[in-house]
Amino acid sequence: MERVEHAIQDKYPEDFAWCYGCGYLNKRGLHFRTGWDGEHTVTIYTPQPEHLAMPGFVYGGFIASLVDCHGTGSAAIALHHKNGHNIEDDVHPPRFVTASLHVDYKRPTPQGVTLKAVGTVEEIHPKKFKVETEVFAGEDLVATGEVVAVVKPDSFR
Amino acid sequence: MERVEHAIQDKYPEDFAWCYGCGYLNKRGLHFRTGWDGEHTVTIYTPQPEHLAMPGFVYGGFIASLVDCHGTGSAAIALHHKNGHNIEDDVHPPRFVTASLHVDYKRPTPQGVTLKAVGTVEEIHPKKFKVETEVFAGEDLVATGEVVAVVKPDSFR
Repeated sequence: MERVEHAIQDKYPEDFAWCYGCGYLNKRGLHFRTGWDGEHTVTIYTPQPEHLAMPGFVYGGFIASLVDCHGTGSAAIALHHKNGHNIEDDVHPPRFVTASLHVDYKRPTPQGVTLKAVGTVEEIHPKKFKVETEVFAGEDLVATGEVVAVVKPDSFR
Repeated sequence: MERVEHAIQDKYPEDFAWCYGCGYLNKRGLHFRTGWDGEHTVTIYTPQPEHLAMPGFVYGGFIASLVDCHGTGSAAIALHHKNGHNIEDDVHPPRFVTASLHVDYKRPTPQGVTLKAVGTVEEIHPKKFKVETEVFAGEDLVATGEVVAVVKPDSFR
């Protein structure tokens, strides 16, 4: 997959589409979009020039943000599928929040290269999913991540 | 400590002051600043309105970015101290990069509240430090984090 045509974030209800990382209504946000390639979840993004750690290399906090939204989006795709829906359906998917986030930085991530996050989702409870993610810069694995995402609790209202 | 007067990031050499999270030369960056209260490292920051997850709550990727730069800054403070220097000295501190980042989100983080990251640093190798961080929104502990930071390797040149 070279681009994400159908993204789960495009189907979030408007009330939950303001996320800085992935909300389509956040004008200053990053607009991460997560899709399904038939086997894994996929988020594709090219960091902006300001997202650097040092000249030539991408900021680790940016990669953490990518892993975060890729994780909640991947969990939403998984539960949406379990509920009998596809991303293409005109049905609001469940909205997840992050319980924990872990990133291992495997090597410096070069700037100016499109990043691809590839996720594998595991249900660990009907309302809690674990997403293992590999982040590639071109062919190179630059980071691995793990997100535990839970269905948005009422405390977010 | 209610504000960080002397920040380790202010003393980074210009070549390494471009970080989106904490570089003073990054015009579009966040400008996290990490100081020392005599016992712990401290980073204080009020998220901008766009740094939201959902209306009223701060974006988890923002908190991860705060923990990240607070972690590398805290490690730099610790090694700088070990080398016989204070932040106030006109001496460039060592520059760290992140090997791993972990964040546990303890409760939804309200927007419009100043966040305070408080760090405890442990040396686990002469070039590798572990930073345990608690993030408070007012009096409330909203997240805990752990960063393993290493002295910038030559692969970042």
